[in-house]
Amino acid sequence: MTAEIITIGDEILNGQIVDTNSAWMAQQLAQLHIVVVQITSIPDAAGAIKHALGQAEKRADIILVTGGLGPTKDDVTKEAIAAYFNTTLVRDPAVLAHVENIFERAGYGDMPEINRRQADVLANALVLFNDVGTAPGMSIQQNGKYFAFLPGVPFEMKFLMEHRVLPALRSYQQDTFVHNAYLLTVGIGESHLAREITDIEEQMPAYLKLAYLPGIGSVRLRFTAVGPDLKRLIEETANFVDQVKSRLGKYVVAQADVSFEEVIVHTFKSHQVSVATAESCTGGRISAQITQVAGASAMFNGTVVAYANEAKVELLSVSRSTLEHYGAVSEQTVKEMAEGVKKLFHTDYAIATSGIAGPGGGTAEKPVGTVCIAVVGRRETQVRTYHFRNDRVLNIERTTMAGLTMLWNLFQKEHLTSTE
Amino acid sequence: MTAEIITIGDEILNGQIVDTNSAWMAQQLAQLHIVVVQITSIPDAAGAIKHALGQAEKRADIILVTGGLGPTKDDVTKEAIAAYFNTTLVRDPAVLAHVENIFERAGYGDMPEINRRQADVLANALVLFNDVGTAPGMSIQQNGKYFAFLPGVPFEMKFLMEHRVLPALRSYQQDTFVHNAYLLTVGIGESHLAREITDIEEQMPAYLKLAYLPGIGSVRLRFTAVGPDLKRLIEETANFVDQVKSRLGKYVVAQADVSFEEVIVHTFKSHQVSVATAESCTGGRISAQITQVAGASAMFNGTVVAYANEAKVELLSVSRSTLEHYGAVSEQTVKEMAEGVKKLFHTDYAIATSGIAGPGGGTAEKPVGTVCIAVVGRRETQVRTYHFRNDRVLNIERTTMAGLTMLWNLFQKEHLTSTE
Repeated sequence: MTAEIITIGDEILNGQIVDTNSAWMAQQLAQLHIVVVQITSIPDAAGAIKHALGQAEKRADIILVTGGLGPTKDDVTKEAIAAYFNTTLVRDPAVLAHVENIFERAGYGDMPEINRRQADVLANALVLFNDVGTAPGMSIQQNGKYFAFLPGVPFEMKFLMEHRVLPALRSYQQDTFVHNAYLLTVGIGESHLAREITDIEEQMPAYLKLAYLPGIGSVRLRFTAVGPDLKRLIEETANFVDQVKSRLGKYVVAQADVSFEEVIVHTFKSHQVSVATAESCTGGRISAQITQVAGASAMFNGTVVAYANEAKVELLSVSRSTLEHYGAVSEQTVKEMAEGVKKLFHTDYAIATSGIAGPGGGTAEKPVGTVCIAVVGRRETQVRTYHFRNDRVLNIERTTMAGLTMLWNLFQKEHLTSTE
Repeated sequence: MTAEIITIGDEILNGQIVDTNSAWMAQQLAQLHIVVVQITSIPDAAGAIKHALGQAEKRADIILVTGGLGPTKDDVTKEAIAAYFNTTLVRDPAVLAHVENIFERAGYGDMPEINRRQADVLANALVLFNDVGTAPGMSIQQNGKYFAFLPGVPFEMKFLMEHRVLPALRSYQQDTFVHNAYLLTVGIGESHLAREITDIEEQMPAYLKLAYLPGIGSVRLRFTAVGPDLKRLIEETANFVDQVKSRLGKYVVAQADVSFEEVIVHTFKSHQVSVATAESCTGGRISAQITQVAGASAMFNGTVVAYANEAKVELLSVSRSTLEHYGAVSEQTVKEMAEGVKKLFHTDYAIATSGIAGPGGGTAEKPVGTVCIAVVGRRETQVRTYHFRNDRVLNIERTTMAGLTMLWNLFQKEHLTSTE
């Protein structure tokens, strides 16, 4: 089965917001072996809505539409959909009671008319009751196609997908399956990776596709098999995943669709190894990225973000003479920062960063993009200087990824040695 | 003039990555008064590429295509494009020399054949030379339409847009202008905001549109005016922006298209007021969000992320008896954390957070989503307990936004009082 996702909203088309809903929805559909054939973003305009629905209905079996249902702009959307399906809008008493109840509980006083209109739904639709917001979803089945209309607010969309749409789609019969498998690699570039495994890739059958998904400092490999025999797809994919994995060796950090932070949190947790960070140019980003993973508190003790030299001395025990001789952005300083924060939080490992993220602060000797990173482990300290480029946000992300990679490599080295 | 953005890549359609390129490109186009009429994401498949090009050519004057040009998958894309334009591929010697040079400088040794193929370009295209990567861009002008094909790697796409595509588009003549103006509001919900300004909105002329763009804890208002007389659009928009701004009073934190963090950094910097954070459940997220803004080092001194009680006592001077009596997630503890980190970093203001972000760690008394936040200023300390929901990432984001809002409100209060 195939699906198309349509997102409605001027704010997407003028770049005001990034559409993150579609990626999440596509992931959910992939789990049901439903292939997304197109994602279409259109403005809050009746003509565009009707045209996009018509095109999507030609391409896909399932059409999921998000956005355009907020209290300040649902008129255009609902009327355009009603026109497309040749139907009218009716006020749903259960939805109206629900919206009134939300206003009453929140102590908002009288309810504006624009919220009352949120209870208007298409006469031919099944109402997808929205427990977590005021805008109801709607679904329509017609000519063998399934349409769902959902609010664009991410957690409301997710609630309605999880509780209303995906259960309905699960009940549909399947005859073609899609099976995905993943390898996460760190520390090798896309084209070198491709060259390393050319011969394996050439042996893959036509129904198995390999995709290279490069990120900052990592490349994710996705194996996708499509066919009628799910068991065979799984076995054949596993065969090629194993070959690629053994060829790439230490570059493979995970055999699953996970983030590098998740790999680090779960590995360190299971080895009962703890980490702290001392961050200057990354400003807490490494810490935030690690602690976003559920369970991080079992392996992560804490962070000091120390912008000022005074804080580096007082909190992290960096010596004044090191700062004076070598400066805050130096291998000597990050080494002392890493060792200092490891002691402070009584951890087994620590990362420290100091650099010139930009756009200001560069000098001839240390231009914007100069970053020093140290990792300290049970026995060893490693320090490196990187030369990134001009973009502040990108430099912070690259430093974060480089620090995590250095941490991972040192852990692997010390762990492999200690268990030999 | 109108534009359509097409993004090519299986990884977008199966939700592996979020398409952030389109939003950035749309922002750039908006600055040239070019309206994006559709964003279309399609798979790495010749049929889909040709069909999308045909549809886009009907809808828009400018068609910008990203993705599908990486070394491991550019064959399909380039051949599909060549077929669409009835042309062939030729190897470009300047591009080939550039790619070889990149490999040589990087010390990668011999260059794989797949990289050599990156120098193949459409015979009828203008090559958009890519200084920052191996995949060249291409542009084609045909039947009054402008097409550009760019790599999907964000910084390569941005380089080519800034140095090759946007200069070409700037030279086109304009007859219709689009003018945008923005207000950023914090602390008032979308529907209440809409009700507050209903009468002003009703007086707005037809060529001026108001959009509500809700985020977590904030609503951005975008005024968009379209017409032939740019001076009049700017004046009339300013008139309505002023009315809305004066009606909404303290809820308006900025009159520009900026983030709340940018407002805080610039305001605190210009008042020479400094901030530190003590973070438990947010894990450094508040710090990372503030320090991502260029210039943050002028007003941000540092952070302690203290997961363990021991660190709260040793680093932040939280008293053991407070932790024993009230627990780590309590108003008493965050108050002492905020006061402790303010002293530690010698700042004027501080934020502290402690909570149960989930999914684990909840109890009957303090379920997942319970978060305490304190802000301490020059004279006053304010503490609040929030009850969020189940999603870890969302709880961290909500806590971050609530902490920043409390900081902003306390600063406004103390600053207004002190200058009376």
